[in-house]
Amino acid sequence: MNNKFNFKLISQDKNARLGNLTTAHGEIETPIFMPVGTAASVKAMHLKDVEASGAQIILANTYHLMLRPGQKNIKELGGVRKFMGWNKPLLTDSGGFQIMSLGKLRKIENDGVTFKSHLDGSKYFLSPKISTDIQNALDATISMQLDECIPFPASYEESERAMKLSLEWALKSREAFKERDGYGQFGIVQGSIHADLRKVSSQKLIDIGFDGYAIGGLAVGEGQELMFKTLDFTTNNMPVDKPRYLMGVGKPDDLIGAVKRGVDMFDCVLPTRSGRTGQAFTSMGTVNIKNARHILDKRPLDNNCNCHTCKNFSRAYLHHLFKAQEILGLMLLSWHNIYFYIKLMENIRNSIKFKEFDKFENTFLEQYHSGDIELI
Amino acid sequence: MNNKFNFKLISQDKNARLGNLTTAHGEIETPIFMPVGTAASVKAMHLKDVEASGAQIILANTYHLMLRPGQKNIKELGGVRKFMGWNKPLLTDSGGFQIMSLGKLRKIENDGVTFKSHLDGSKYFLSPKISTDIQNALDATISMQLDECIPFPASYEESERAMKLSLEWALKSREAFKERDGYGQFGIVQGSIHADLRKVSSQKLIDIGFDGYAIGGLAVGEGQELMFKTLDFTTNNMPVDKPRYLMGVGKPDDLIGAVKRGVDMFDCVLPTRSGRTGQAFTSMGTVNIKNARHILDKRPLDNNCNCHTCKNFSRAYLHHLFKAQEILGLMLLSWHNIYFYIKLMENIRNSIKFKEFDKFENTFLEQYHSGDIELI
Repeated sequence: MNNKFNFKLISQDKNARLGNLTTAHGEIETPIFMPVGTAASVKAMHLKDVEASGAQIILANTYHLMLRPGQKNIKELGGVRKFMGWNKPLLTDSGGFQIMSLGKLRKIENDGVTFKSHLDGSKYFLSPKISTDIQNALDATISMQLDECIPFPASYEESERAMKLSLEWALKSREAFKERDGYGQFGIVQGSIHADLRKVSSQKLIDIGFDGYAIGGLAVGEGQELMFKTLDFTTNNMPVDKPRYLMGVGKPDDLIGAVKRGVDMFDCVLPTRSGRTGQAFTSMGTVNIKNARHILDKRPLDNNCNCHTCKNFSRAYLHHLFKAQEILGLMLLSWHNIYFYIKLMENIRNSIKFKEFDKFENTFLEQYHSGDIELI
Repeated sequence: MNNKFNFKLISQDKNARLGNLTTAHGEIETPIFMPVGTAASVKAMHLKDVEASGAQIILANTYHLMLRPGQKNIKELGGVRKFMGWNKPLLTDSGGFQIMSLGKLRKIENDGVTFKSHLDGSKYFLSPKISTDIQNALDATISMQLDECIPFPASYEESERAMKLSLEWALKSREAFKERDGYGQFGIVQGSIHADLRKVSSQKLIDIGFDGYAIGGLAVGEGQELMFKTLDFTTNNMPVDKPRYLMGVGKPDDLIGAVKRGVDMFDCVLPTRSGRTGQAFTSMGTVNIKNARHILDKRPLDNNCNCHTCKNFSRAYLHHLFKAQEILGLMLLSWHNIYFYIKLMENIRNSIKFKEFDKFENTFLEQYHSGDIELI
């Protein structure tokens, strides 16, 4: 059937995977980066420009949307995709990660999480069923189970407790998921940096049976080396025939290292958030456009980039926009960064296709770590 | 010669004029609205979208650009048009209006104005020659003379003094203007609301000889009725074969009333500034998108509008973006407003062409003042 939610592994280059995910709202080539549209907007970007940059799927945050404008209103308005004018697939997280970050404003129990809105302090309760019901109402192409994501470092006991609770919530989330052709729900593997916990988590999630599996609880302070090490023994226990999604990651070199270890999907606020603070990702590393050395710099951000920003504007102009606090500065840097991330994934896919992933990795990282050339 | 700065009056419908202005950087059909790009950016808009909306000429502010990044840097970077990526004509004001608004931070003498930068308090001096030299360096298609724009109300004596000083500055500005094929410089008629002063001002400016004539010192608090009355006796004394530019005006009904009285060019921050505060201009009047009545409003801002915002997004979504303080809200409303102003001028030009300006005015104003329809 055309509309079935289905992942097809097309080819592999060692552990790096080239895949194709079919959904109700279109096909996605993996590995893929998902721009983050937290409150139903990819910050400081026109959605048509996100799409023109090659985005195949975007993410929205359940926590933000349940508070404002609320899932009831979004359902009334046709779901979050229609609401924001996005025709391609969209993934929602469970709301759990943001709520866990609320600190004193939240209380975790076995049934779910009680928390206070960061907007007005009003009280909310989120259970696996409620989170899933909300995501059903938002009409997300891909929903995520509610899980408990603990900080790093955490004791083995604490890691085990949270992993087991996440498994209970996985089952309840799965039961609440409304099956629709071409829609999917992902379970989330937890267990911090412990191989045995990650293994149990994967196996039990597979027993429940999800349409894809995410890796949670990483990029929370453990560092790249430990993240890569954890990925090595985690992806190993994940199904080959389902998409694997590393949540909230990351920097360009994180993405490359994770693809190398068998990850298919990513999301991160870094390209848009950095864009708003004046940091650009380029093939020669990051550039802080606010730096005075760019005052008369006629070069584009990145000579190797074909984005709207690099094709039309000098670093001198972008520097001026940031100094003058013009919104256009945020708009142009966010656009460049999103384009950079999407093209990176495109290049990664091509390198896997031609079994040249290692070569691509070496070439990219060497150039990326060489640093920006000084203006002569 | 192709590149000569030249205004051609194509036809008239009573006092409303249809014209064509040839410049070094392209032709402009008048009457025209010029979006304002204060610091070399039309705020919260991609310039390609300003152009796609039909903008034929934009304005930049000399005061802002001389302070940051400075005319020396902009000249080094190829002029303000190249700096910001705009290939069509661009007009710069003289810097005078912003400086006059600085209040205690400035001191006017016969030679020019001493003022302190609002950015860092450093001292500057602007004379007619310096203002013109800066505009030469910015490479503006159209430059403006330095004038003294006084507030309203002002005594007859004060109005006369400022008008005469503006005439002295007109001559000095004209002498400092660097002649280039297809570039032009406009004189500015002053004299507050006094017919005899406006007449003297016009005649003396014509004696000096400019490529176009602006009307300054209006829309400074005198109200629409008095502005229209002043226009009636001011345009009357202005050359038929040169463009007439009413500076800093205005609301949609101001533009229509001024065209009716023989004005050809306008600029105003209203469409972009209003866009950033949640006010949209529509064919049924203004709409405050932050109003709670739009929470579930599936309609576009304006059923009669073909802009990107109206074709793709509901009022409910725009309302949400403003409530969530998403930059995209400012971007989409600014875009709609700029498009609305540009289409208004397009419709005005068509109505003059078909000698139906009065009919257009009546139809537009009746609908515009009818007010937004309530959601049923």
